[in-house]
Amino acid sequence: MKALVYHGPGKKNWEEMPKPTLIKPTDAIVKINKTTICGTDLHILKGDVPEVTDGRILGHEGVGVIEEVGTAVTGFKKGDRVLISCITSCGKCEYCKKGMYSHCEDGGWILGHLIDGTQAEYVRIPHADNSLYHIPDNANEEALVMLSDILPTGFECGVLNGQVKPGDTVAIVGAGPIGLAALLTAQFYTPAEIIMIDQDDNRLAVSRQFGATQTINNRNEDAIKRIYQLTGNKGADVVIEAVGVPATFELCESIVSPGGHIANIGVHGKSASLHLEKLWSHNITITTRLVDTVTTPMLLKTVCSHKLEPGKLITHRFPIANVLQAYDTFQHADVEKTLKVILVNE
Amino acid sequence: MKALVYHGPGKKNWEEMPKPTLIKPTDAIVKINKTTICGTDLHILKGDVPEVTDGRILGHEGVGVIEEVGTAVTGFKKGDRVLISCITSCGKCEYCKKGMYSHCEDGGWILGHLIDGTQAEYVRIPHADNSLYHIPDNANEEALVMLSDILPTGFECGVLNGQVKPGDTVAIVGAGPIGLAALLTAQFYTPAEIIMIDQDDNRLAVSRQFGATQTINNRNEDAIKRIYQLTGNKGADVVIEAVGVPATFELCESIVSPGGHIANIGVHGKSASLHLEKLWSHNITITTRLVDTVTTPMLLKTVCSHKLEPGKLITHRFPIANVLQAYDTFQHADVEKTLKVILVNE
Amino acid sequence: MKALVYHGPGKKNWEEMPKPTLIKPTDAIVKINKTTICGTDLHILKGDVPEVTDGRILGHEGVGVIEEVGTAVTGFKKGDRVLISCITSCGKCEYCKKGMYSHCEDGGWILGHLIDGTQAEYVRIPHADNSLYHIPDNANEEALVMLSDILPTGFECGVLNGQVKPGDTVAIVGAGPIGLAALLTAQFYTPAEIIMIDQDDNRLAVSRQFGATQTINNRNEDAIKRIYQLTGNKGADVVIEAVGVPATFELCESIVSPGGHIANIGVHGKSASLHLEKLWSHNITITTRLVDTVTTPMLLKTVCSHKLEPGKLITHRFPIANVLQAYDTFQHADVEKTLKVILVNE
Amino acid sequence: MKALVYHGPGKKNWEEMPKPTLIKPTDAIVKINKTTICGTDLHILKGDVPEVTDGRILGHEGVGVIEEVGTAVTGFKKGDRVLISCITSCGKCEYCKKGMYSHCEDGGWILGHLIDGTQAEYVRIPHADNSLYHIPDNANEEALVMLSDILPTGFECGVLNGQVKPGDTVAIVGAGPIGLAALLTAQFYTPAEIIMIDQDDNRLAVSRQFGATQTINNRNEDAIKRIYQLTGNKGADVVIEAVGVPATFELCESIVSPGGHIANIGVHGKSASLHLEKLWSHNITITTRLVDTVTTPMLLKTVCSHKLEPGKLITHRFPIANVLQAYDTFQHADVEKTLKVILVNE
Repeated sequence: MKALVYHGPGKKNWEEMPKPTLIKPTDAIVKINKTTICGTDLHILKGDVPEVTDGRILGHEGVGVIEEVGTAVTGFKKGDRVLISCITSCGKCEYCKKGMYSHCEDGGWILGHLIDGTQAEYVRIPHADNSLYHIPDNANEEALVMLSDILPTGFECGVLNGQVKPGDTVAIVGAGPIGLAALLTAQFYTPAEIIMIDQDDNRLAVSRQFGATQTINNRNEDAIKRIYQLTGNKGADVVIEAVGVPATFELCESIVSPGGHIANIGVHGKSASLHLEKLWSHNITITTRLVDTVTTPMLLKTVCSHKLEPGKLITHRFPIANVLQAYDTFQHADVEKTLKVILVNE
Repeated sequence: MKALVYHGPGKKNWEEMPKPTLIKPTDAIVKINKTTICGTDLHILKGDVPEVTDGRILGHEGVGVIEEVGTAVTGFKKGDRVLISCITSCGKCEYCKKGMYSHCEDGGWILGHLIDGTQAEYVRIPHADNSLYHIPDNANEEALVMLSDILPTGFECGVLNGQVKPGDTVAIVGAGPIGLAALLTAQFYTPAEIIMIDQDDNRLAVSRQFGATQTINNRNEDAIKRIYQLTGNKGADVVIEAVGVPATFELCESIVSPGGHIANIGVHGKSASLHLEKLWSHNITITTRLVDTVTTPMLLKTVCSHKLEPGKLITHRFPIANVLQAYDTFQHADVEKTLKVILVNE
Repeated sequence: MKALVYHGPGKKNWEEMPKPTLIKPTDAIVKINKTTICGTDLHILKGDVPEVTDGRILGHEGVGVIEEVGTAVTGFKKGDRVLISCITSCGKCEYCKKGMYSHCEDGGWILGHLIDGTQAEYVRIPHADNSLYHIPDNANEEALVMLSDILPTGFECGVLNGQVKPGDTVAIVGAGPIGLAALLTAQFYTPAEIIMIDQDDNRLAVSRQFGATQTINNRNEDAIKRIYQLTGNKGADVVIEAVGVPATFELCESIVSPGGHIANIGVHGKSASLHLEKLWSHNITITTRLVDTVTTPMLLKTVCSHKLEPGKLITHRFPIANVLQAYDTFQHADVEKTLKVILVNE
Repeated sequence: MKALVYHGPGKKNWEEMPKPTLIKPTDAIVKINKTTICGTDLHILKGDVPEVTDGRILGHEGVGVIEEVGTAVTGFKKGDRVLISCITSCGKCEYCKKGMYSHCEDGGWILGHLIDGTQAEYVRIPHADNSLYHIPDNANEEALVMLSDILPTGFECGVLNGQVKPGDTVAIVGAGPIGLAALLTAQFYTPAEIIMIDQDDNRLAVSRQFGATQTINNRNEDAIKRIYQLTGNKGADVVIEAVGVPATFELCESIVSPGGHIANIGVHGKSASLHLEKLWSHNITITTRLVDTVTTPMLLKTVCSHKLEPGKLITHRFPIANVLQAYDTFQHADVEKTLKVILVNE
């Protein structure tokens, strides 16, 4: 089969690879129908994720069809259409029992990381019963690709951890795909205001279409000052960090109200300064989280009942054989106005 | 009347002051029976709290007897024995309605800070109905002085915010009076292990008497290494910071398990480094809080039913006229083995 | 002034009464701008609420303007536009501190019940600071009358107690004004399906306009059978009782899924059978509640940000002098297709 | 092997049965070391549980040693000492993912009910990875038998569902083994008072030894009157039903305070009257639950750290071959003062 293979920092290739086979009785082999590219894939290509080694097939998102299942798989059979979770869960370990699949002792984020991933014609999925989801007949496959990673990430790490409530003022720092996923799912809880902060006017325009009530371009204006104006000098009840650098995290510290929440989604490479000299008495809560994908069944229901339309995030489509061009488009998001791309395996 | 008056950094005096009088219809005047000294009073005396100005009577803890009440006070009358909360609450503002009395728009921590305090023969208490508590007949007054500040602080900021649960492993960094208050009240939730970390062997010995299952003197040994040994290499479920400097906060970051909680109690003067490059994916929760004293009624019940014995924290007693000697004893806690002192106004 | 006065079962009159005056320093006198009639008022008129005695002015909802405040009222002054809560809260007692204003030791539901109410030109409001809310400049007064009782009742007793979550299936038994208030506010949490059950086709048609995804007329069809068809044979995650008779409560028991919630809003006059022989092992939660109106500030925010439009519930308007005609219209709701009426005091 | 076999209402026999064998790859065969008898076994013997058919081996509690595991079992191997959960959990279905193992689509309570149970020399355990727990080296096997069912049942259905909090007044109706398990585990949360209500003086005496602060023999005195005396006329914050008949459930309704919780543990055969005409406005919560055993890992930790001593519940011991005598002793609990019996397979 063909697959996108990583060959060390800066190097990737669409090439022939052996088709995966069942290794354990709990495995399934899935033929990929549609997959996508994640910001994390770009990090890997920069060499920021040293656990990913030469020869690894990238990708941790996608929908497909079951090709074959191991003898202990009971929930899926050949021909079933499935959504692949970016997080593999054994369903047995201490962490899985607590709903913290991200830290599964025999799983977590392994696809396209520690084992071969989904930017390929076929993929092996360990612990298939706990790591795949049936796709309902009426569901839009393309939209569901967004449920592999980006929607549960925005929702669990941003919205749930931030404890968004009806009537709240929510500020989201970063209007990339993850920030937009948080914007879409924050609306599940009917906050009174959602303020998006970014430096890209196109993404802020998209944010307004997606339900933001206010937008701030913090390249041009003082976000802190503006937030205090918009909130009667209190700050935001919930602040969601969706960038991953010290400056944006510290901006969150500056705009959270007493009693408020800072929910980190960003993947950070450096420490940030935590201003305890101010915050120690502000009754705030800061959370971090690698997505657990525990909410995938709920997100599926909201997509099927048309309460959530994640397909909005898709801006470009490519045949999977053109994956290198798709990476280019995804990398030049500012010029191409890219949010998410879909790779189709026909 | 006599009172302990602050006269700028390093200067305090026990001197004659006018007896307080009612200013608003919601005020009460309380004759002090017993009061104490807090670590915060030492900070004020160092000049670290510039809002405290020359001429201010210090102190924000105590029990006493109602001398006089304003016309709108309905819950108390002359002669009632009362516990004074360190936090004044109006009961009407947005924050009070949310149970965040610490941020009351007409209160919060004001005693011995923005208005005259309790290290005196009499004190004026604003919003008396919401800021005082009746003392049951059978209750030990001395023990209840610990409920003005230190017990609710250890409990709310440390134990409740840390979400201590049955079976948890709890680590408390700092075995001073506040850390010990967290130790006593953490036991409300029956954690499996409570590990105290401090540099003072006497305080660690006291910790063991008070229920710590393990103690670590981090002057002599590597606390991080020891915690991982004690926790099967996972870290502690709940880590409580009860010191207030960057090094102890950063120690907390190093010993919290994935999915765990860091509950800050310490009063910080400087920023700490938040190691997001490691913690972003560890599903942790960090909280800060100025005590709200919302749990004072519950703490009173547990003291009266002998489930909590805060009197254990008292090591020294002085007539209130000897308050300067009491400050000396409190300041030289290492030599004197002081935890809390009681000042008696006879 | 003129007021609607109760004169024993079946008897009411619009007649001259003394204008109320301040009694306690925490009172306010409010000139009524707009008020409404509640199902509870009809119960009183039937003689079902014996605490209401001859000579009582009815009504516990309304908006108006402050005419005069007592010396201890700090949050309001003459001329302020205010929303009146149906629940009076002292802000000081054990229950108020827990947010259970409905059981306030010096308040609770007293307006138009134990003291004179709002179907009058003026009303005295005890504990004004904790029982009134400022009306923002841009707010629609008429819509806000719905926030005195009906919206917080549907939301707190039905939606919050029922713990409605994104993706849930919610069934609401009873599509009267209270059931519709639950329908409107359930949507704060983005359930996947909301099924309304009633015997009045007009109210079911209104329900569909207000966001119900399915409706069942249980005069014509078997509601239990239909619910199991609609839910893949599981039952509803949340069932809200908004009628108040044994049959409808027992219907709720029949349609709740394992792990589900039954949230009672209805005012009941008789016991219901609780089928523990079936439910003991179904992991269900049943709640009851008299509205606390703790969510009024949040509801005000959602109205002002146009996330909630309670004005939809208003079907008829009358000058307050025509209050007897308004009662007629409200009582013959089936013929007149009445939901809520507004009484205007010009 | 030998086993206790049910032969229809009133008939049981200790007889030769085939040794169980692996059926599915997720099964384990466990050699029983110790087991016990549950009140439910007596119900089965009366014929109250018609799903149990002639030829079924009874019993759903026990500890033992792994004899053999299926190919998909990864967490256990021959020779491991294990605790058997009374609830079988597949770890994959919608209910298991929500922590509602009691309703597992391929498990739940099946041992000694729908498949052969533990009152035997060997037992087959389906879904072994999710339904067995490793026994730590230092643990007392006998005490751990109490963790198969009775301790998680008292804790999850009574204490957790009842939301027992520090300072609460808890009333437990029924001082049999389950009520005593609730009593022991309620103390995890440090309530101020625990009041036991029963008609057997011996069990009330045991309750006092186990931590009850008050006991009421409601054969001799008016429990309702006494509870109101003990609670300042408010009622209990949490009421736990541990009997399972209408009269005891209705007693719970009579003694719960406004804002309080009724947590049902009892297995009921009949409906109870729910007094909504009184309770509709009392802000109460009623819960039912079949134990999920989600707290077994936590209970194991508290036993190993000596915070919980469930061995106290054991009053009699028998070789497993004397199981018929053990049933006699258990059935005549009043005369024999039996709480739990241990059956030893040597």
